[in-house]
Amino acid sequence: MCLLVYDITHDGTRGKVSEACLDYGLQRIQYSAFLGDLSRTHQEELFRKVRKRLGKKEGKIQLFPLCERDIRQRLEVINAPV
Amino acid sequence: MCLLVYDITHDGTRGKVSEACLDYGLQRIQYSAFLGDLSRTHQEELFRKVRKRLGKKEGKIQLFPLCERDIRQRLEVINAPV
Repeated sequence: MCLLVYDITHDGTRGKVSEACLDYGLQRIQYSAFLGDLSRTHQEELFRKVRKRLGKKEGKIQLFPLCERDIRQRLEVINAPV
Repeated sequence: MCLLVYDITHDGTRGKVSEACLDYGLQRIQYSAFLGDLSRTHQEELFRKVRKRLGKKEGKIQLFPLCERDIRQRLEVINAPV
């Protein structure tokens, strides 16, 4: 599994990065956080693509591999819109 | 180590959650993502606090423990503002 989070100012670039994440089968767990099951090779491939899409534009993209134990121990609260 | 990410609509609540993260010594690595070294007990304590601050308001907070190996293997690009 892996978690990809980003902070990108430019709207178009942000859209392209989120599209790439969805293309790789990641699930959008927050507006700018994606979680999914990817081999290390695919993690690196996806990361190369999104880094290329960001180019030199302002922003941050971080991809964290998550082992089974880390995933199991996550804590979360999800409140739907009122 | 742990990574806390949130997606919170209400400005005041978002501010209080980020304050709590900083109080626990986490580092702000993105606008809504915090990373830091916390024992499991402190992870749970921080999570209880931020969940309480969110209350029933719309939003998501997720805390992922990260083992040493997962941290080492993270991929990141950080571009400063142009």
